[in-house]
Amino acid sequence: MPPDNTPLTRDRILAAAADVIRRFGPAKATVVDVARALGVSHAAVYRHVATKAELRDLVVGRWVETIMPPLRTIVAEPGPAAKRLRQLFDAMIAVKRRRATDDPELFAAYRTLAVDAQSVVVAHVDELVELTASVIRSGVEEGTFRTADPVSAARAVLVATSRFHHPAHAADWADPALDAAYADVWQLLMDGLRSSSESG
Amino acid sequence: MPPDNTPLTRDRILAAAADVIRRFGPAKATVVDVARALGVSHAAVYRHVATKAELRDLVVGRWVETIMPPLRTIVAEPGPAAKRLRQLFDAMIAVKRRRATDDPELFAAYRTLAVDAQSVVVAHVDELVELTASVIRSGVEEGTFRTADPVSAARAVLVATSRFHHPAHAADWADPALDAAYADVWQLLMDGLRSSSESG
Repeated sequence: MPPDNTPLTRDRILAAAADVIRRFGPAKATVVDVARALGVSHAAVYRHVATKAELRDLVVGRWVETIMPPLRTIVAEPGPAAKRLRQLFDAMIAVKRRRATDDPELFAAYRTLAVDAQSVVVAHVDELVELTASVIRSGVEEGTFRTADPVSAARAVLVATSRFHHPAHAADWADPALDAAYADVWQLLMDGLRSSSESG
Repeated sequence: MPPDNTPLTRDRILAAAADVIRRFGPAKATVVDVARALGVSHAAVYRHVATKAELRDLVVGRWVETIMPPLRTIVAEPGPAAKRLRQLFDAMIAVKRRRATDDPELFAAYRTLAVDAQSVVVAHVDELVELTASVIRSGVEEGTFRTADPVSAARAVLVATSRFHHPAHAADWADPALDAAYADVWQLLMDGLRSSSESG
């Protein structure tokens, strides 16, 4: 790519990094390769992104952030908690499956990068727990759920649905039996939330 | 290994195959390599195991079978269903974690083979479902659990605990937060079994 006159910003660097990863794989998420793609010097990129690790974390953060706005909207909207909880998980599972199915190589590339971007992944999971806990809390307020600890319950629902959204299971997401398994797991989890022993 | 006078049996072939896999990796689970290790002709092995696929399936079957006897014992013994269900899952999770921790390469080798041995894996999961369903059924009889469909509930409990026993998550089993997550998931699942909406 020839140099152009657009000022170099962190956003342009991350867009270029995403393009490089798409075309050449996760090993190319380096300052050198991104600078080459932008037609600028390494030094110019380093002024915005100090290290390879920082570039990797920003790239993974950008990738996981793109799935969040619709999930935040579901949580912010009014409506019965059980219904919104299901919508939240349906939407999260659908977007992850779509990504894994539409472009398995790109999905695998980001998964490889994410293994080393643990602080970004932890922050992402923490937000998913917080969104889930927020819906469970409103279910407790409306009298649908009885859990005494919405955050622990939220973590449990996320972990218990790993088969349907954790990238480690992406290879199984085409299994036609998966929807029935999801229905069974969901039923059991909702029964659990509706009648938690924690609050008696 | 020089030829000896012990008669060639399927058991000896599978023991030799396990040894070859342990020393040289999953790609060496072939009739040629196993015959060489036994110091016999390919033809001699082929009289007992007809194809490479059959050898692979027998090898994976032998590997998964070794974890089963203690699990069958737990299910066959008397006692409160909730306690036996927890014992069943604790034992299954412990043996898988031990294997993955003690010899990660061997664990990965068998996982690679298992990907292609789907009928063996399905039969293994079906037995785990049946053992779990058997305990849930006895819990319904004793009045502890209220699920109307013990087999669906058993599948749900197995899928919902994937993070703790599915080989796809082996890399995370050293995470110190895992035991707390298991406790939270287990609590929610037991709450669900105790109060299933399916039977009202």
